[in-house]
Parts: sequence; C-alpha cells; structure tokens
Amino acid sequence: MDLKPIFTPPETSEMQSRLARVQAAMEAQGLDYYVAVCADNVFYLTNFANYVHERPFVLVVPRSGRLQFVVPQLEIPHVTTRSIGNIELVSYFEFPAPEGETWADRFEELFPADAMVGVESTCPLQVYEEVPGTRVRDDIIDDMRMVKSDYEISRIIYASDLATKGMSQLLAGAKPGQSLMEVNSQVKAMMMIQILTDYPETNIMSTDVSVVFQPPGISHDPHNFTNINMVMEEGGPHVSIINGIMNGYGTEVERTFFLGHVPEAAKKPYQTMMEARAKAFELSVPGNDMGEVDRQVNEVFKKAGYGDNLLHRTGHSIGVTGHEGPFLAEGYDRIIEPGMFYTIEPGVYLPGVGGFRHSDTVLVTADGNRSLTPCPSSLEEMTLPLVE
Amino acid sequence: MDLKPIFTPPETSEMQSRLARVQAAMEAQGLDYYVAVCADNVFYLTNFANYVHERPFVLVVPRSGRLQFVVPQLEIPHVTTRSIGNIELVSYFEFPAPEGETWADRFEELFPADAMVGVESTCPLQVYEEVPGTRVRDDIIDDMRMVKSDYEISRIIYASDLATKGMSQLLAGAKPGQSLMEVNSQVKAMMMIQILTDYPETNIMSTDVSVVFQPPGISHDPHNFTNINMVMEEGGPHVSIINGIMNGYGTEVERTFFLGHVPEAAKKPYQTMMEARAKAFELSVPGNDMGEVDRQVNEVFKKAGYGDNLLHRTGHSIGVTGHEGPFLAEGYDRIIEPGMFYTIEPGVYLPGVGGFRHSDTVLVTADGNRSLTPCPSSLEEMTLPLVE
Repeated sequence: MDLKPIFTPPETSEMQSRLARVQAAMEAQGLDYYVAVCADNVFYLTNFANYVHERPFVLVVPRSGRLQFVVPQLEIPHVTTRSIGNIELVSYFEFPAPEGETWADRFEELFPADAMVGVESTCPLQVYEEVPGTRVRDDIIDDMRMVKSDYEISRIIYASDLATKGMSQLLAGAKPGQSLMEVNSQVKAMMMIQILTDYPETNIMSTDVSVVFQPPGISHDPHNFTNINMVMEEGGPHVSIINGIMNGYGTEVERTFFLGHVPEAAKKPYQTMMEARAKAFELSVPGNDMGEVDRQVNEVFKKAGYGDNLLHRTGHSIGVTGHEGPFLAEGYDRIIEPGMFYTIEPGVYLPGVGGFRHSDTVLVTADGNRSLTPCPSSLEEMTLPLVE
Repeated sequence: MDLKPIFTPPETSEMQSRLARVQAAMEAQGLDYYVAVCADNVFYLTNFANYVHERPFVLVVPRSGRLQFVVPQLEIPHVTTRSIGNIELVSYFEFPAPEGETWADRFEELFPADAMVGVESTCPLQVYEEVPGTRVRDDIIDDMRMVKSDYEISRIIYASDLATKGMSQLLAGAKPGQSLMEVNSQVKAMMMIQILTDYPETNIMSTDVSVVFQPPGISHDPHNFTNINMVMEEGGPHVSIINGIMNGYGTEVERTFFLGHVPEAAKKPYQTMMEARAKAFELSVPGNDMGEVDRQVNEVFKKAGYGDNLLHRTGHSIGVTGHEGPFLAEGYDRIIEPGMFYTIEPGVYLPGVGGFRHSDTVLVTADGNRSLTPCPSSLEEMTLPLVE
C-alpha cells in the first residue's frame, strides 16, 4: 500500500474498466440492459454529476458497446464538459413536452421489446414504468462500487488527508466560546481553498464539505444541528465532525473531545467506546462478515451496561458519496473484501452526559485495515488544554 | 392582495388544513392510504426536512386520522423538534437491520391487506415493492402544493423580497473584474445574515441560496458553471441568478445585464426576449392553459427567427422548493389558477453573442398576476454604467 493521493478526474481507461466490470456482471446475470437513474451511479460510470430533478437523466448500459445517456438538450454542453469516456447522448428538448417528444419517447427507442432489463432499487416509479422489456430489480453498479480501484483509493486518500488536516486545525483552535460560524469560516474555508487550489476545475456539484461540532449539551443526540449558533464549552464531551465529498470522492473523520477537564461521568462511556472501536478495527479483516462485526461491537457496549444507549450501526461505506453501502450493521451479511472502505464509528449516547463517538475512514487491505484519518484518539490526547 | 412577508414556521392550523385537503382528495379518489417518500412532500405535510438516503423516512397518510411517519430511531429528537402537527412516529432501529426489525416490518403494520394505496411517481422501487394492498400511482400532494395558502404566499413574498434586495446589491456592485467569489462573499453573505437574523432557528436543511452570474462568453449555455473563477467583463450579456429556498420556501430572480455598452448583435435578441416576456405576463391569468402560454411565447421567438435558439420552457413553479411543477411548457395542459406561483423566464441563446433571460417569481391573482421580484428590466436600466 504505497498509493499516493490523487485529486484529478479519472482517465478514460479507469472509466472503461468500470464499464467492463458492470457489463461482465450483466452478462453473468443474463441482463441485456441496465437502467441507472441514481445520480451517484451515473457519476460512477460517466464522471457527470447531476441532481435528480424533474428533467430526467437516465443512463442506459447495454451488455456490450457504449453507454447511452438520455439527457435534456439544455444540459448537453454540461454533460460533454464533465463526462469521460465514449458515451452516446440521446437528447430530448424539455420536460414536460408534447406527446412524441418526451424523454420517454427517446428512451423507448433504445430497447428491443424482448430485452431483459436491470433496474435499480432506487429507480423512481415514473421511470420504472417506462422501462420496456422484462424488468428485474438489481443493483449491479452499487455492488461494483463497493470494492475500489487503485485510482479510487488514491482519491479517498486525498480527501481523507485534507479532512485530517481540517480536524487537526479544528482541535488546535478549540476553546470555550468558539462558535460553529468561526469553525466554518476557518476550517471549512481552509479546506475549500485547498480544494480549489489543487484542482481549479473542481466540480461544485460533486463537492460538499461539512465541518461541524456538537457541544456537550446536545452531543447525546447525534443528528441534532437545530441551533446553528452553538458554541464550545469547558468540559465535554464535544463531538466534532468533518465529512463530505470533494470533487466526487468522500471521507469522514469525527472526534470526541473535552476542553480543560473530563467530567467523571464521561470516563466510563469514553473508555467503552474506545474498546468497541478497537474491536471493530480488530475484526475489520477480509473474510469476516460485516453484520457479525457490528454484533460483536454492540456486545462490548451491552456488556458495559449501555445496551439502551445505542443509536446506530458501527459504520457505513464511502466512495463517490460520503455515505453509502455496504454497512457494518447487524442483519447485513456481506463478507469484507480488500479494497472496501468504510467508517468505523461505534457510538454511545447518554442523555445528561453526552455522546461518545470517533469516526475514521478505513481502507480494508489484503491482510487487515488502515485508517486514512489518523487523528489522535486517546482520552489523554482528546482532553485539550484551555488556552487564551 | 395585501399579504405581508412571513418567515416563521407554519402554525398547527396551517398544517391541519393541508392534511385535510389531501385527505379530501384521497376520499374523492377512493384511496385508503397514501405513501410519501419525496422529501418535499414530507416537508409540506410535516415541516420536517430530510435528505432521502439509505435510512428511509416514509410518511403514511390515512384517509382519516393523524399522519403516521416511519423514521429511524436516531432521528426521533430531530423529527420531534422540527415537525408541526399531530404525527404518530413509528420508529425502526437502523438500516440495514435483522429480519423482523427492518423499516419495512414496521411499515407493513400500518396497512390492512385490502387497502387501496396511493404511491407517488417519484417513489423508489424499493419502497414501492414493500407497499401492501393495491397500489395506485398518484401525486395528490404534488397537486395540492400547486395552489398556495395565504401563509405560503407570505413566505414566498419574504423570500422574493430578500432575493430582490440581493439582486439590487449584485447589480449595484457589478463591474468588470468582479468575480463569482466576490459576489458570493458579499451578496450571498448579506442574504444569509438576514435569514439568520430574522429567524435564528432557520433550518439549514431547507435553506440553500445560490447567487451566481454568467459572463458574456458562456451565457449562451445557461447551465454552464464549470469555471467558478469567472469574472464580469465590459459589455454583455451577463446573466445574473439568485434562487434557492429559505427555511423551506423558494424564490428566483434573474437579470440579463451589460456593463458600459450593449453590443449591436445583442440588441435584437434582448428586445425579442422582452416581447416574449411581456407575452407571458399578458397570458398569465386564471383560466388560461399553461402549455398554450409556452406555445405562444415560443411563437414570439420563432417569428423573430430564433426557433433554433430556444433551450427551455417559459417557466417552472416555486413552493417548498425553488423548482417544481406545474410548468409553463408546451405539452403540459393545466389551467392557471389564482394562488399558483411560477417563474416567467423565456430565454434565447446565441452562441457567439450570449444568453438573454430575465426570470421573475410571479403570483397568479384573482384577475391577473404580480411579480414578487420587481427589479428593473428594460435594456436602458440593465445597461449599467462603468464605475471605478
């Protein structure tokens, strides 16, 4: 593993290799065509980022030959600028449109009547109903995305390096009274400037960085960001969060920290979280079952008496998004493979005490794993001195 | 029409009235239940904003009685903080989850086996397949959203007033060399500060303001924002754009402008755009057909010889999003009603000359219409003096 960070878009060969893998899976599953509407799957195969809105973008993958991409005419220059690879554009003028000129009219031309067609789990009903042939629900592209190429690993290394730099800056500047606005105008601004310096043509549609924290009063409620005027306080636990996507590749790093002192009630949950985290790293090796990892991690919390203080699974994957499958989650049976990425972020949440969670972006290697967000994590290191 | 701007969340009575309208439509259409996954429709009925991701939020509307909302346990405090009205939360622990504990297991409990269930056009296949009973594709909530309540009108007045103020500031500061970054750090920052001052608990998940422009070299390609380092130039046409949502309600204003002088080749397309725009305002009265408005507007361009220079419909609606149906688009047959909102933004695009488009947020009134974004629009007013 001596891959270096990369921040430039993929070469054509990378895109061809992705398409070849998808087409090989289609062959194996007996599919003639595959229909992708999910913006992340479209991005994975084309490098073109879009929002799903009322003018459909629909990617049609034939079992052999080049991609066909149904797009609004308005977007042709945009698609041409960003897409990489040999893609046939099939355009329609507008949505809505008069009969005979709609996107569905163009779409139907692409399939023979007796085709076997794979359709994603997330396909909107209105697209599903227009798919000709025999429809089979299938998530081939999502499956392909789970194991990363060397290029993709290098992109996530870049994103993780920058997130780690951001987290170091956030922790270095942490002090009572520090507000979310200040953190954003310092740490997030540093990251955005770095991104735009390293690749000035960065696609803002596939770039979205969050830099936030929760102070002790609300860190037990991990999705609570109602008060955007919140500030850091003496004590803790605070939970700091940096995640998002940078020109199409994601990362995440989170740290639980204290300012000046650690309340007595916080010591045991912190230590338990660290034990659960160590268990997750220990079990994150090729061949293990992802659901079983989560089960054993949860067991650590349950043995410590925190069975009722769990709010989420051990981790989620990362790739062309910051949050995707596969998952380290009980009930999710998938075998860990080298080249997978996921967060390790077991957490425990005690109302009146706070939330305890570190998150790392972890790459599964041939014989183990490696955190790409190697920020400090021990209670000693996470107890930050009070500075003026 | 003497409604005043409002920026606070709706009262319970407003939410009850929306639910009552949806339930009356369900009664009329013989539906026992209606399933909403679309985040905008969920927001409309609950005031809770979410992103659609792998942990489903599914709103179930019964023909009578209160809403049932299937949510991940992790999000309960968040849902409780933001939602308004009498809503029963039906929670599941996590996704993925062991058999018997999944979101779909909880979801199924809500329906009798013989129910008639309405499902949205945008419903993801994986939710659609879990819907019990007889499924009927229907877009009742989208239909209800098309005609606004007085409260909603007041919210869009607020958003439009602020966008108009932003556009005035953008135009007042326009000069050669002015960059997108500067416009953002001045105009967008002013708007965000105003928003957070007027309502400090503003929901960032339902707030997203864009302030951008296109210089003459690319304004013929209206969705081209590839170069985020672009700057204003002497001459034109530039197209400036302010749109987005502010704590859940949208607006849009766009202006074509020149710096110092108007190139000769720009005069006829500008004048034609103004004629098309006047035609759209003239025809925007209750009782007219929306597709026919677009057809007649396009006719103005075609008569002037610009039939091959059209890239989009005359307008889209605005509500809990900045971009939604109904549409002023050929082939879209819906009758204009008082209380509808849409943009009027006919445009014409000439490579080598530029793009010509103003956009206004327009409210249909009992006997006509009213622009809520009354920025100047004439060529004389849009030819801005060169200042130091």
